[in-house]
Amino acid sequence: MKDDQTTLQELKDKMARFVRERDWEQFHTPKNLSMSIAIEAAELMEHFQWLTVEQSKNLNPTALQEIGEELADIIIYSLSLANFLGLDLAETVNAKMEKNIRKYPKEQVRGKSHKYTFYQKE
Amino acid sequence: MKDDQTTLQELKDKMARFVRERDWEQFHTPKNLSMSIAIEAAELMEHFQWLTVEQSKNLNPTALQEIGEELADIIIYSLSLANFLGLDLAETVNAKMEKNIRKYPKEQVRGKSHKYTFYQKE
Amino acid sequence: MKDDQTTLQELKDKMARFVRERDWEQFHTPKNLSMSIAIEAAELMEHFQWLTVEQSKNLNPTALQEIGEELADIIIYSLSLANFLGLDLAETVNAKMEKNIRKYPKEQVRGKSHKYTFYQKE
Amino acid sequence: MKDDQTTLQELKDKMARFVRERDWEQFHTPKNLSMSIAIEAAELMEHFQWLTVEQSKNLNPTALQEIGEELADIIIYSLSLANFLGLDLAETVNAKMEKNIRKYPKEQVRGKSHKYTFYQKE
Repeated sequence: MKDDQTTLQELKDKMARFVRERDWEQFHTPKNLSMSIAIEAAELMEHFQWLTVEQSKNLNPTALQEIGEELADIIIYSLSLANFLGLDLAETVNAKMEKNIRKYPKEQVRGKSHKYTFYQKE
Repeated sequence: MKDDQTTLQELKDKMARFVRERDWEQFHTPKNLSMSIAIEAAELMEHFQWLTVEQSKNLNPTALQEIGEELADIIIYSLSLANFLGLDLAETVNAKMEKNIRKYPKEQVRGKSHKYTFYQKE
Repeated sequence: MKDDQTTLQELKDKMARFVRERDWEQFHTPKNLSMSIAIEAAELMEHFQWLTVEQSKNLNPTALQEIGEELADIIIYSLSLANFLGLDLAETVNAKMEKNIRKYPKEQVRGKSHKYTFYQKE
Repeated sequence: MKDDQTTLQELKDKMARFVRERDWEQFHTPKNLSMSIAIEAAELMEHFQWLTVEQSKNLNPTALQEIGEELADIIIYSLSLANFLGLDLAETVNAKMEKNIRKYPKEQVRGKSHKYTFYQKE
């Protein structure tokens, strides 16, 4: 499976089968899944906790492998939540991206992080 | 765009273009993106914070719409991180799912949450 | 040490000494500490992930011990952040509590979670 | 109220009264409170999301004020959880600190973050 040959539906279906075959729908409720995603997000973050921003850009293969697994967990639970809620992810993600494109016009925000300006001492 | 017609690569490409056109690669570093995913995961969770597990299964359309947007944000930052790290998401997710299939044999874990057993008073 | 005999300053001082003796001020920056708190919060949450709300109210002593340690980690990093930023925690917490008391008048909110009303189907 | 004159018990009592007067014990269950702490931790993190580690060390007074409020929220929910579980925070925090003192002998770890060594390319 490769990103350019795999649809989101294929991954959703695989995850749905995994949950159904284990009779885990009773645990994979929206409230619980939102916690699961947050927990996996924290495990991803743990890898970067003590690194500088620069260091986080130069990861060795072992670190990269572990980080990939954490990211996979986030996606996996997200797929399961989309399955439970009957959400089309491509549609939802695309709509949010279009919203962001309008919200942050490229001419105005290029190279800028507004937060930077707000937080710093003069 | 629909899940059965959209590949992960299409979403990754769209996100890469969004970041590049705004010259935001300097902010979208792995450390920062891991924080972004965790922040969006918490915003998703906020919707379920005071609901019972049962209530979280019966959401009205307005709530569902808002929840979809939070889930989209999580996916969006995950796509950006995968872009930065050069990770193939389909491959990574598939490998993790296969690992989970072996780790949790369906005959043994059906309908069980091990955590449940561990935490409760007898 | 007991809660009715221990001031916040005593805990802050003990934590400051721990960090200083290890020359860890360079890692205990606000950005990193905010990540640490979020990571420990997720580890706390992990204990409740698959429990119902009801089950989470009946924990056995082993679970309670582990949960206490996670909560301690959250407090520990919060103390370190307060040290770094020069924040008086008692003052800050008290001010926020007073704000909440005004924001949620007891006569109006008694027994109600507004979120409940918002999210449910009629 | 100042850190050197305020015991943890005083803050716990104030928070217990706030919850009791609103009949909110039904919502302030351990599962929900663990989510609340994680959500507030993410709101704290949001302030540092796009800052470099260095920038996060030089905050202006307005930013500092907002950050203090987020930190207060984390403490507030932690106090509520300690109340619900009947945990003595000073005792729990002190025990965890003693454990950390033994786990990280100052002579061996001074100025080092093990994570740093692990993650970087040679």
